[in-house]
Amino acid sequence: MILESGKKLGPITIAYETYGRLDKSKSNAVMVLHALSGDAHVAGFHKGDEKPGWWDDMIGPGKAFDTEKYFIICSNVIGGCKGSTGPSSLNAETGKPYGLDFPIITISDMINAQKHLIDYLEIDRLLCVVGGSMGGMQVLQWVASYPDRVLSAIPIATALKHSPQQIAFNEVGRQAVMSDPAWRGGNYYGHSQPENGLAIARMIGHITYMSDESMEKKFSRKLKNGSYNFSFTPEFEVEGYLHYRGDNFVKRFDANSYLYITKAIDYFDLSFGDKLFPNSKEIDIKFLVISFKSDWLYPSYQSREIVKLLKARHADVTYCEINSNYGHDAFLLEFTEETRLIKHFLNRVYIYAGKK
Amino acid sequence: MILESGKKLGPITIAYETYGRLDKSKSNAVMVLHALSGDAHVAGFHKGDEKPGWWDDMIGPGKAFDTEKYFIICSNVIGGCKGSTGPSSLNAETGKPYGLDFPIITISDMINAQKHLIDYLEIDRLLCVVGGSMGGMQVLQWVASYPDRVLSAIPIATALKHSPQQIAFNEVGRQAVMSDPAWRGGNYYGHSQPENGLAIARMIGHITYMSDESMEKKFSRKLKNGSYNFSFTPEFEVEGYLHYRGDNFVKRFDANSYLYITKAIDYFDLSFGDKLFPNSKEIDIKFLVISFKSDWLYPSYQSREIVKLLKARHADVTYCEINSNYGHDAFLLEFTEETRLIKHFLNRVYIYAGKK
Repeated sequence: MILESGKKLGPITIAYETYGRLDKSKSNAVMVLHALSGDAHVAGFHKGDEKPGWWDDMIGPGKAFDTEKYFIICSNVIGGCKGSTGPSSLNAETGKPYGLDFPIITISDMINAQKHLIDYLEIDRLLCVVGGSMGGMQVLQWVASYPDRVLSAIPIATALKHSPQQIAFNEVGRQAVMSDPAWRGGNYYGHSQPENGLAIARMIGHITYMSDESMEKKFSRKLKNGSYNFSFTPEFEVEGYLHYRGDNFVKRFDANSYLYITKAIDYFDLSFGDKLFPNSKEIDIKFLVISFKSDWLYPSYQSREIVKLLKARHADVTYCEINSNYGHDAFLLEFTEETRLIKHFLNRVYIYAGKK
Repeated sequence: MILESGKKLGPITIAYETYGRLDKSKSNAVMVLHALSGDAHVAGFHKGDEKPGWWDDMIGPGKAFDTEKYFIICSNVIGGCKGSTGPSSLNAETGKPYGLDFPIITISDMINAQKHLIDYLEIDRLLCVVGGSMGGMQVLQWVASYPDRVLSAIPIATALKHSPQQIAFNEVGRQAVMSDPAWRGGNYYGHSQPENGLAIARMIGHITYMSDESMEKKFSRKLKNGSYNFSFTPEFEVEGYLHYRGDNFVKRFDANSYLYITKAIDYFDLSFGDKLFPNSKEIDIKFLVISFKSDWLYPSYQSREIVKLLKARHADVTYCEINSNYGHDAFLLEFTEETRLIKHFLNRVYIYAGKK
C-alpha cells in the first residue's frame, strides 16, 4: 500500500480476532479499535492467559457489544508489535527486522490497512466503529476516509487533533527511548531492547492516564516500608506502581512500535477544513461521543469540539461526559456507564440498519 | 548541622545576595525563597549577564519588594549547585565532590541552614518570607520551624504536602537522570554530566510548568518547517521549545542537585497533626496565599488547603486565586497582579511591625 508520506509498505500482515457471528446480510459487524499499547485480543482468554482481553468487560454475551447479536472485529494496527506489520517485522527486502527502515505511518494509513480487512471479510458497511484514545482517532478517521463503509461511530476519550501538550508528552517519551544507548539507532533486534528508556516513557504515560484524584485515592503519600529511607530508591507506593508498570510494559511492547505509533498520534489532525467530512453530501452516520470528567490527557473540551463540528454538519450526534475520577483510564474502567450508553445506542442503529 | 535524617553535614557554605539596606532596627528584612532550579540571584544584573535575576520584575526600587524600603535577602538552598553546599561541592573528608555521599536533605534542613544566615545578619525577625513553588514550601517551613522569627508569610503556587502525582513526575525525572549511563552512579564529576537524562527530566518539568491553554496559544500545532518531515526529528514548535529548554538546563544545573532537591520536595508534608504550628500559642504571623487558576502542577485546591488549615487556627490570612493562563509558570510571569496584592499586604505588615 501507498502511505500518506508517499512511501510504499507491503506486503502487509493484519492480525485480527473476531467474536460472535457475522449474519447472512453481513450487517452486524462492529470494528473495535485499540489504543497506543493495545492489540487485537480485545476479549476472552487465550490459552494460558491469566487476564482476558483489554476490553473484555464490554464484549461478550449480554455485554455492551453483545456477541450473541453482533460480530466483533478487532485488529492490531500497522506499526504495532502484536501480529500486524510493524518495525519489528521482517523486511522482505533485507530479511532483517525493519527497525527505522519502517516508514512513518499515520492514523489514516492504519485505517487504509483495516479497510483491506473488511473488504476481505466482504463487509460492505460496518454497523459501528468504536474505540477510546487512539482508538477514537481511528474511529474519526474511518468516518473521514470511508464514510460509506460506516453506519455509526463511537469515539471515546479522544480528540480531533493532538494538542501541543499531548505532542509534548509523546516527544518526551520518544526521547527517553532514543536516548537509551540500548536503542542502538533502532537496530536493537537480537539484543535486549532499550528497557530503561521505554520504561520511563511508559511511566510518563501512566501519570497522564490517571487523575490527580485517582492517584490520591489509590496511593496518597503511602510508603512501601512505612518510613522514609532517605535514599533514591523508590519508597512511595506511587513510585513502586510506576516502576511496576514500566517494567511490565517493556516485557510486552516493542520500543520502535512505541515511536511509530506515538508519531502517528501526533500527526493526527482532522480539525481543519473539511477533513472530517471531505465531501459535502449528507452525513448518514450516527455518532455517540463519550468523554470523562477527570480525563486531563484528552479533556472533555476536545470531545465537545468533535460534537460541535458534527453538529455544524447536522449529523445525528449524542454526547455524554461521564462523571468519573479515573482520568483517561476511565474508558477501560467505567464499563457500567459505557454499557448503558452504548447498548441503547447500538440497538437503535441496528434497528435503523434493518429498516434501510 | 544535624539533618532531619540524623546525618551530619558541615561545614556548610550558604551563597546569598541582598538588595536594599537593612534599617537600624533590622526590621525591614524580606527573605525570598527560590524554586527547584532557582538561585540566590533574584534581581538585577551580574557583570556580563544578558538576563536579570529570576524575579527581577518583583524586586527593585518602586517594585513589589521595594528596595528603597525593604532589605531583600535571597540564598541558594543547600543541596543546590549555585554556591551553597551541595552534591557537587568538595567533601572536606575526601577532597572530592560529594556525589551520592551527600546526605539526603529536606525542606526543613534548607530552612535550618537559612536560619544560620539570619542569625549571622543579626536579624531577629523577618518582616516577610516569600516564595513560589518549592519557595512556597520553604515559606511554610519557616512558619513551622521558626514562627517567632517571621512576621508575615507569602506562599505562592504551592502545597502543604507533595501529592502522589507530583511525586510521580519527580520520580520519572530522577529515573531519566539515573538511567543515563553518563550519570555513573553519581560520580560524573570530571566527566560530562548525564546530559540526556537531565534534559529529559527538564522537558517533563516544562510540560508541567505550562498549561494546556498556554501551550495551545504559544505553539498550537505549528511546524518548524511548515510541513511534516515523516521522521523522528523534532518538527513541531513545541518539540523544539522543549529541546531548547532541556539543553539549556543541562548547561546551568547539576544533575545530582536535581535528584537531591526533587527528593526534598517529595518529602515535604506539613499537612498532618500540628506540623505547621507545632506549639499551641497564638499565631502572630500574617499570611497572603496566592494561587493561579490554570496551574495544574500545584492546583488552587492545594492553596485552599493551606488557607483552611490557617483559618482553623484563627490566623490572619488573605487568599487570592489569580486568573492566569500561564499554568505554574504564572508565579514568575504574573508580576502585575502579584505586585498589586503584595505591595499592599507588605505595607500593612510594615506599619503593623512599626507599631509593635
